[in-house]
Amino acid sequence: MTYQAPVKDMLFVLNHLAGLPEVAALPGFEEATPDTAQAVLEESARFAGDVLAPLNHPADLEPSAWHDGAVATAPGFKQAFRQYAEAGWQGMTHPVEYGGQGLPGLIGSPCSEMLNAANLSFALCPLLTNGAIEALMTAGSPELRKRYIGPMITGQWTGTMNLTEPQAGSDLAMIRSRAQPVGDGTYRISGTKIFITYGEHDLAENIVHLVLARLPDAPEGVKGISLFLVPKFLVNEDGTLGARNDVQCVSIEHKLGIKASPTATLQFGDAGGALGYLVGQENRGLDAMFIMMNAARYAVGVQGIAIADRAYQHALAYAAERVQSRPVDGSSRDAVPIIQHPDVRRMLGTMRALTEAGRALAYVTAGHADLAHASPDGEARKRHLAVQEFLVPIVKGWCTEMSIDVASLGVQVHGGMGFIEETGAAQYYRDARILTIYEGTTAIQANDLVGRKTLRDGGAVARALLAEVRQTEEALEASAHPAASLMLAPLRRAGSALSDAVDFILANAASHPNAVFGAAVPYLLLAGTTLAGWQMARALLSSVAHRGDDPAFHDAKIATAQCYALHKLSQAPGLAAVVLGAKDYAVQP
Amino acid sequence: MTYQAPVKDMLFVLNHLAGLPEVAALPGFEEATPDTAQAVLEESARFAGDVLAPLNHPADLEPSAWHDGAVATAPGFKQAFRQYAEAGWQGMTHPVEYGGQGLPGLIGSPCSEMLNAANLSFALCPLLTNGAIEALMTAGSPELRKRYIGPMITGQWTGTMNLTEPQAGSDLAMIRSRAQPVGDGTYRISGTKIFITYGEHDLAENIVHLVLARLPDAPEGVKGISLFLVPKFLVNEDGTLGARNDVQCVSIEHKLGIKASPTATLQFGDAGGALGYLVGQENRGLDAMFIMMNAARYAVGVQGIAIADRAYQHALAYAAERVQSRPVDGSSRDAVPIIQHPDVRRMLGTMRALTEAGRALAYVTAGHADLAHASPDGEARKRHLAVQEFLVPIVKGWCTEMSIDVASLGVQVHGGMGFIEETGAAQYYRDARILTIYEGTTAIQANDLVGRKTLRDGGAVARALLAEVRQTEEALEASAHPAASLMLAPLRRAGSALSDAVDFILANAASHPNAVFGAAVPYLLLAGTTLAGWQMARALLSSVAHRGDDPAFHDAKIATAQCYALHKLSQAPGLAAVVLGAKDYAVQP
Repeated sequence: MTYQAPVKDMLFVLNHLAGLPEVAALPGFEEATPDTAQAVLEESARFAGDVLAPLNHPADLEPSAWHDGAVATAPGFKQAFRQYAEAGWQGMTHPVEYGGQGLPGLIGSPCSEMLNAANLSFALCPLLTNGAIEALMTAGSPELRKRYIGPMITGQWTGTMNLTEPQAGSDLAMIRSRAQPVGDGTYRISGTKIFITYGEHDLAENIVHLVLARLPDAPEGVKGISLFLVPKFLVNEDGTLGARNDVQCVSIEHKLGIKASPTATLQFGDAGGALGYLVGQENRGLDAMFIMMNAARYAVGVQGIAIADRAYQHALAYAAERVQSRPVDGSSRDAVPIIQHPDVRRMLGTMRALTEAGRALAYVTAGHADLAHASPDGEARKRHLAVQEFLVPIVKGWCTEMSIDVASLGVQVHGGMGFIEETGAAQYYRDARILTIYEGTTAIQANDLVGRKTLRDGGAVARALLAEVRQTEEALEASAHPAASLMLAPLRRAGSALSDAVDFILANAASHPNAVFGAAVPYLLLAGTTLAGWQMARALLSSVAHRGDDPAFHDAKIATAQCYALHKLSQAPGLAAVVLGAKDYAVQP
Repeated sequence: MTYQAPVKDMLFVLNHLAGLPEVAALPGFEEATPDTAQAVLEESARFAGDVLAPLNHPADLEPSAWHDGAVATAPGFKQAFRQYAEAGWQGMTHPVEYGGQGLPGLIGSPCSEMLNAANLSFALCPLLTNGAIEALMTAGSPELRKRYIGPMITGQWTGTMNLTEPQAGSDLAMIRSRAQPVGDGTYRISGTKIFITYGEHDLAENIVHLVLARLPDAPEGVKGISLFLVPKFLVNEDGTLGARNDVQCVSIEHKLGIKASPTATLQFGDAGGALGYLVGQENRGLDAMFIMMNAARYAVGVQGIAIADRAYQHALAYAAERVQSRPVDGSSRDAVPIIQHPDVRRMLGTMRALTEAGRALAYVTAGHADLAHASPDGEARKRHLAVQEFLVPIVKGWCTEMSIDVASLGVQVHGGMGFIEETGAAQYYRDARILTIYEGTTAIQANDLVGRKTLRDGGAVARALLAEVRQTEEALEASAHPAASLMLAPLRRAGSALSDAVDFILANAASHPNAVFGAAVPYLLLAGTTLAGWQMARALLSSVAHRGDDPAFHDAKIATAQCYALHKLSQAPGLAAVVLGAKDYAVQP
């Protein structure tokens, strides 16, 4: 049940696929050299493996518990969070002026993966805090930024996102929480929020809630929602803590997984209204919340990769050890470790290939985000931003859907032992199941991909990416390596399948919206399958080129790319068939 | 959280697809008319819905508990089991001479589905008892049959299968439990058995364990294993219970799902050896155990359909009720029940289509089993037996794999509520996860399908079934109904894909065993996808023909067949690509 971060693969992706050298050439990121990246990743790997990973399974057995409004987190979480904070991890990618280290998100991504692989429940607290920092950084007033961001970066305080209400899940238009102006620039917030991750806990001195609510006479729907900062404890001018605010944790949920992460129901305003501060403009709360959500959506995609890798490592260790049955090829008269059996190899190979492909896709997206943020060239910023925005729903949707499949395969590799909770494999299967739901379900991601990311620009970004896929196809064609030609045919078919799907969506969205949105999830899965496969093809080419540096590593990479091509890329035409048939075939719910 | 058995669909499958009229024409099954079937199914539906279904979720929260060697089952289980026994359900398909009702397995299958849909944990006890009855019926001596079968049929006693040991899971060759002949025809059994479903409980007076063990000087491997009947309480000549036998339940497992079904570790022979009776011949224990296992494998496939249907019904009810977001086609300015959203329709439609396709495939298999058992024509018996044996691993493997997908979709339909245990959707996701593991993992089923069912007869049965698929294609081609032509193309591609895979397996098994067995699971999934799709095509044709009888029912069936074609049958060529590429592509575990 240990976890060893795949630092070598991570660095390979950073350096050869995701453009770390280009990012390190950006103004402000000069320190993000490959050497720095390696040092940071190795330190992060130690913390994740030594401190967080051992707490993961015990915390599932003895999860966070609510008592009388307070939440006691799982054993060891408090001390681990202290270590996390003191080592400065929370500030890694945040600006130096606020006490952060100003490293690019591209280096932050593997560290986030490690944190989540080691302990998904624990990692949610920093994940949400990051989102709150981002939102304040972008939309908060100078006073709010000054008073609240610093203590969140040091880990003294943490942050939350308060969107969901009992009647308002995916549909934020239905939010009913209220904000009453006091007259002095502050507001009194009241209402009930549910599913608030780390909405209450004992890891930090204060909790900075970012809360969506409506002003009196605000327009109906999403155009009447404002964002407020509501601290658990009020903060004095000098930054010290004052009185308890009017927000109470009335319960936490009994969940399928991530049991150590407290999911709170928060009651605001039972005693006259919680004091809140407007973030951004009135009625424009969703703008700021979307910043937070986009950061969080990408981060949840990385959680998918993380849990997939953890499940893979767990299953791999078991398969190397468990002896059962003679090999089908007659190569031994004795029973052998099950890793030698073809179907176990298929399962582990698929788990590995999906994980590595997801990782490459996500880090490539992070590279675009850094370039979109920091490139000195305005045109380049725009271009990278468009690609990043196209890829975020795919990273979120595809990497989380695949994580459920991978975690399920991990249970299967263990046979009967996989179903016993003590083994630990079942926890990943349970934990992973939230990932396709929170921060926007797969359908929400898919609708975003269809609507805002494909239709709005007439398929321009989609086609630009497909043109890049074709360049990789040409490079595969030019390569003399036999693995390159094995990769070529499935990549070409997948690229062509995705291209057909894009055309279908553009042609039919206006006339047949139900068919197109009914095919949105298959379209997202097709895009993910193809674009992650494209990264594996790029990885293959890079490994062929650099094989001499580390033959064992690169040979494994070349084989993993083939495994992806056989087991996953081959499914792309079938997904396109679903999209293209959506207009003609009936659906019977 | 109620369950309403889909009696109408079940009867449609029995009468129009699975050959109930032919079965009712067999000697001994004269009473199995469509009217009897309907009456039995309706009564079974009442029992399942009224008595068992309400116990399912509470039993998950308060599962079976071990104390000092005894197991207390979940609240209400004892009384429900009494009702089950007194109504005669356990004996439904067993011979009249032993106190059963002698109905065909074809009528037993839907009743078994209902039982499992209502309460999977409960239903495991009758499922295992059925297996024990089958094994004794086939291999037990007249004395053992006389003494043990009757009380199992009345539900006074229950039965178990004792195969697994800590070092012997899929690999029965590694069994170490010992049987020492006493000299009077009985044996003393010692050893440890794990994962014994209902190995200890309080539902019945006695438990009849069927135990695999080795005689002294037995050959190594599977050819040295014998089967023994080891009762929990010894049975006197007059059938009354005597002393407690030397078998103890030392613990039960803490599992991911089916928590109310006690999974026991049994210790045999700590006090000198448990008294056991040989079943069948010495060293031929696997022959009898395989009878039991084949019955159980089919039954587990039905469990997959059952849990899929329960998950579907649960999600459907939620989707009809939960209001969220406006429709994408602009047909309403208000938020609507989510069942109106295209992706929710896709998910529910897929769940329904997979469930109904699995049901049809399974019941068709049961029809072959009845014909194999009771046909007066020896050639016909042989032919149906071969088809049944080909289909059993597919029913087990495919229906259980799909049940995990369906249960996972069920969670997804619920959004965040799906992750909260109180909702109930998560229980199906946890419960379903055992189905691809016990009674032989999907890989074990796939190896059986490749080795004993495809290679051994040179692909004869596979090709005979494919010829029948082509007949259905011709019927679709001949039909003027537009849905028939939509079904034709995907069915034809799937049939051709399966045909290619069969050819590949036959051509390469000897020369490339690792590649072929590494493709065994994709082959099984391809076979299931295609053959279940074939049943949906047959259903479509039948519904077109009988539409006038019940237009709403048949229109839904025709739409469901299309949904299956679009979302599942379309994936068959991709699965074939995996099989056909197995020789060329590397695998990197």
